Amino acid sequence: MADGLYERIFELAKRRGFLYPSFEPYGGAAGFYDYGPLGAQLKAGIENLFRRIFVVEEGCAEISCPAVTVEEVFVASGHVAKFDDPVVRCQNCRSPFRADHLIEEAGYKGNAALLKNEEIDALAKKLGVKCKNCGGPFGAAYRQNLMFKTEIGPGSGKVGYLRPETAQGIFVDYPYLYRYFREQLPFGVCQIGRAYRNEISPRQGVLRLREFNQMEVEVFIDPQKLTHAKFARVQGTRLRFLPKASKEIVEMTIGDAVAKGVVANEALAYYLVLVDRLLTQAGIDPKRLRFRQHEDDEKAHYARDTWDAEFQSERFGWVECVGIADRSAYDLTQHAKLSGTPMRAVRRYETPQKREVVQVRSVPAKLGPLFKKEAGAVTAALLALPADRAEAAAAAKEVEVIVDGRKVTVPRAAYDVVRETVTVAGDDYVPNVIEPSFGVDRILYAVLEHSYVETTKEGEAYTVLRLPLAMAPMQVGVFPLMPKDGLDAVALDLLHKLQAAGLRALYDESGAIGRRYARMDEVGTPYCVTVDYDSLKDQSATVRERDSTKQERVRFTDLVDHLRRRFSPFRDS
Amino acid sequence: MADGLYERIFELAKRRGFLYPSFEPYGGAAGFYDYGPLGAQLKAGIENLFRRIFVVEEGCAEISCPAVTVEEVFVASGHVAKFDDPVVRCQNCRSPFRADHLIEEAGYKGNAALLKNEEIDALAKKLGVKCKNCGGPFGAAYRQNLMFKTEIGPGSGKVGYLRPETAQGIFVDYPYLYRYFREQLPFGVCQIGRAYRNEISPRQGVLRLREFNQMEVEVFIDPQKLTHAKFARVQGTRLRFLPKASKEIVEMTIGDAVAKGVVANEALAYYLVLVDRLLTQAGIDPKRLRFRQHEDDEKAHYARDTWDAEFQSERFGWVECVGIADRSAYDLTQHAKLSGTPMRAVRRYETPQKREVVQVRSVPAKLGPLFKKEAGAVTAALLALPADRAEAAAAAKEVEVIVDGRKVTVPRAAYDVVRETVTVAGDDYVPNVIEPSFGVDRILYAVLEHSYVETTKEGEAYTVLRLPLAMAPMQVGVFPLMPKDGLDAVALDLLHKLQAAGLRALYDESGAIGRRYARMDEVGTPYCVTVDYDSLKDQSATVRERDSTKQERVRFTDLVDHLRRRFSPFRDS
Repeated sequence: MADGLYERIFELAKRRGFLYPSFEPYGGAAGFYDYGPLGAQLKAGIENLFRRIFVVEEGCAEISCPAVTVEEVFVASGHVAKFDDPVVRCQNCRSPFRADHLIEEAGYKGNAALLKNEEIDALAKKLGVKCKNCGGPFGAAYRQNLMFKTEIGPGSGKVGYLRPETAQGIFVDYPYLYRYFREQLPFGVCQIGRAYRNEISPRQGVLRLREFNQMEVEVFIDPQKLTHAKFARVQGTRLRFLPKASKEIVEMTIGDAVAKGVVANEALAYYLVLVDRLLTQAGIDPKRLRFRQHEDDEKAHYARDTWDAEFQSERFGWVECVGIADRSAYDLTQHAKLSGTPMRAVRRYETPQKREVVQVRSVPAKLGPLFKKEAGAVTAALLALPADRAEAAAAAKEVEVIVDGRKVTVPRAAYDVVRETVTVAGDDYVPNVIEPSFGVDRILYAVLEHSYVETTKEGEAYTVLRLPLAMAPMQVGVFPLMPKDGLDAVALDLLHKLQAAGLRALYDESGAIGRRYARMDEVGTPYCVTVDYDSLKDQSATVRERDSTKQERVRFTDLVDHLRRRFSPFRDS
Repeated sequence: MADGLYERIFELAKRRGFLYPSFEPYGGAAGFYDYGPLGAQLKAGIENLFRRIFVVEEGCAEISCPAVTVEEVFVASGHVAKFDDPVVRCQNCRSPFRADHLIEEAGYKGNAALLKNEEIDALAKKLGVKCKNCGGPFGAAYRQNLMFKTEIGPGSGKVGYLRPETAQGIFVDYPYLYRYFREQLPFGVCQIGRAYRNEISPRQGVLRLREFNQMEVEVFIDPQKLTHAKFARVQGTRLRFLPKASKEIVEMTIGDAVAKGVVANEALAYYLVLVDRLLTQAGIDPKRLRFRQHEDDEKAHYARDTWDAEFQSERFGWVECVGIADRSAYDLTQHAKLSGTPMRAVRRYETPQKREVVQVRSVPAKLGPLFKKEAGAVTAALLALPADRAEAAAAAKEVEVIVDGRKVTVPRAAYDVVRETVTVAGDDYVPNVIEPSFGVDRILYAVLEHSYVETTKEGEAYTVLRLPLAMAPMQVGVFPLMPKDGLDAVALDLLHKLQAAGLRALYDESGAIGRRYARMDEVGTPYCVTVDYDSLKDQSATVRERDSTKQERVRFTDLVDHLRRRFSPFRDS
């Protein structure tokens, strides 16, 4: 075949209903793909596997927040200031280009994403980079923020952004979530949903989308306990690591990786194991999967340790599909600072302790009339002031607190500063965060590429998508040997019984039976049921299995149970 | 209690983790809600029920398209021109208000949404409407488009909108979907996802969100066959109808409703039945559910017949939560017209027929060099020209066709106009569409309100959320009678077994056992498992059922099967 593997997979994906380029009748738009009937099911399969592992078995909470988000959230997270790419624009035709990509394509050997604007300008000159459209010269490099911007309330002028990640919704809800988990750490919260990155000039199909699908988990932990209660159960799991500053993949157990200091701590290591489990159960080949540690100049300044799960693609080489980061206390610290809402947890003592404290208390008779309905919130904000600010407030004429994101000034007469001995239940602290962040679209592509098996059959190319059972978009094909003599009526009756029992089944009566099996193999359908002339006598059908192509006779009355046992979402205990 | 039912439900929803106001640490934003851990599960329950009915049992295809959409799609759909609300702005404080709401609140008895701007201005003057903030006078009414606007490619100037409905993605993909279904109508395609409406001043909590969740089905049918193959199976289903121009709900079978002309046709009627099934299985009280027909001045000009499924709310009266419309050929006609891409189907003859046709054929030797890679697409566009344009092209100097959304001019030398007798397989036509469109957030609220049961227990108010089994966010509570003497270890072991078997289970050891049951009843958890001192001897636990409060002893070894049978997603065949 003239085209490469990637082209053949994409041809299949488009022809059979996995992926359609979005808005195609209108000329399309780069960076957008639709999941067709089979693609959307495969995506649901990956999401259900994620829920199975994280929500059901690990007991994480799943939440769902809007994609449109108020600006303040991304000021706090740093996305307004730093979620950008370096861009150069042609001075002749005005086309914009990713400056770092141009530099790398022109032969620069380092990581161009780390360069400053001036360094880019110097390198562009040195390497003689010209516009790819018209050959014109480029202007100076500048940073372009990549968030999609909009307005909340038409004509209001209030800026909103489409979230660049689902994580921030979880951080912002932390005070509610801490209460949901009855103020006990550790706990995990996840979100599955769309995220957005308004790329300058997206390429690489579903690997770099402007609207993409994430599954993110934020595990809130006590920074003094970077262990994991279930680590002992997984410590023998072998993974393939590419540690920072090394060039070779080493395989070892996760227990050894922690013991040798390759992975920073047990809490982070535990989630590497869950990520590995999800990816391999989804259908990624373990031999084409590795965990690569971020280099020191690559990871965020606040991150303690970061790993990427990468799959190997014939076309793209090693591609990141999951990031697993120990984000320390960065996220909650930022949101607490910018919103004025405490985002803390209490590390309880075995027995409560007595302690001298300085507190700012409201004087209700004065504060009430001043703040009316908000008096309660102001009182709480005063009480939450740290010792140093409380001391300062004693001598001041007024004190400033933040209530619901707004600054509020409380006059001296409306508060007292009180020193006393109190009983304290524990120390409070800012929880740290371990974050496994999954790119659904990339995982889906990896599953397609690693499941795609080409063989020959009777001299012709033959394709089977060897998807794991739980990932199969269509579960059963139902065929009459011929669409006549009552075989079709019997097959349709079986189809409806399978559907009523909860199986995704498809009826097909056209073409030779071998051609129908081939159509099902090509999209990874694990079982086909064929009704033939014997069926009318023995009340049985032939069930064919995709990978072995083995066939067995199953009585109509047993068929539903026979198949649904294989697809049961409940694992045997 | 001082507050009404609505306030009590919302207090529970916020306290227990169903609904959180979005971005609360930053002061929030009207029209946005987060689903908390239990809310997100309840939403998933509704979506899974939808998939069960439409995707598995009806065999619809589910697809998933981006929310960010190119402008052309909504020019074709009419949203750029007509998706708007009438607004007046205070001339003093500049606050915007929904003009129709102000007019209705001021005493206007008609449907103010149907008024023209000038009629609004006249009524506002007559009724003496003033600004609610400052009492100032209003300027003239104007129309405000309600789509969230953004830019595709930062700095590109290319307008994009957040989709106001998921339906358009399905229509745009029609050519792919027709092929997916092997060119056989009828077929149904659905999409579950976010949609957006940038409301002027949203109120009513989750009933009017700026970012909301839809589940939409587009069933493509032949307008000459407005019947449904499975109608006979459902014709005895009784529904409560409020036909247009009538004031009383009448209950009758769907078969009678079609026979008497109350519902336009079988195809539409069949989906009323599926909607009823989904809503009642989700937990909406059938006695507080009705199907209301749109009045002639209310429904879209192209719609043959439209019904709203409405639930009765204590606070809001009758509220629409699903719309079921016969949209005729409107959607595909519009997209075909604006994109130049044919959106048609073929009604096959029993045997192919011969017919005289006029066709525009390319002259490859001339066309090839002119259009290079696009020559194939241009050839197809020429062939697709209707007979009248083909006749005209014969005498013209050139002909214009649309390729990939762009106009292309083909000179006379590059084509021939040919008359000949051809064999035709069937008549082609524009499919019609039946569209059930579900508002997930409203259904979720309805389920909460209709499941919420207040009783008293030992003199105190007691709340049970009587959710259907399949909707329960948390499926099993697991408790040790006391958190000591090994009871906790046994309970935790059962918890992990239930989770490993796929059940959403929660461990709780704090407080009296009655208090723990109450917490589970309040969020609708159907079963609680308690490990007591006898358990250590008889290896059994007490299983308590939520609604009956009946308790039974179940052996540890039977527990997983005992419970997971109850939650199996597979219905017995």
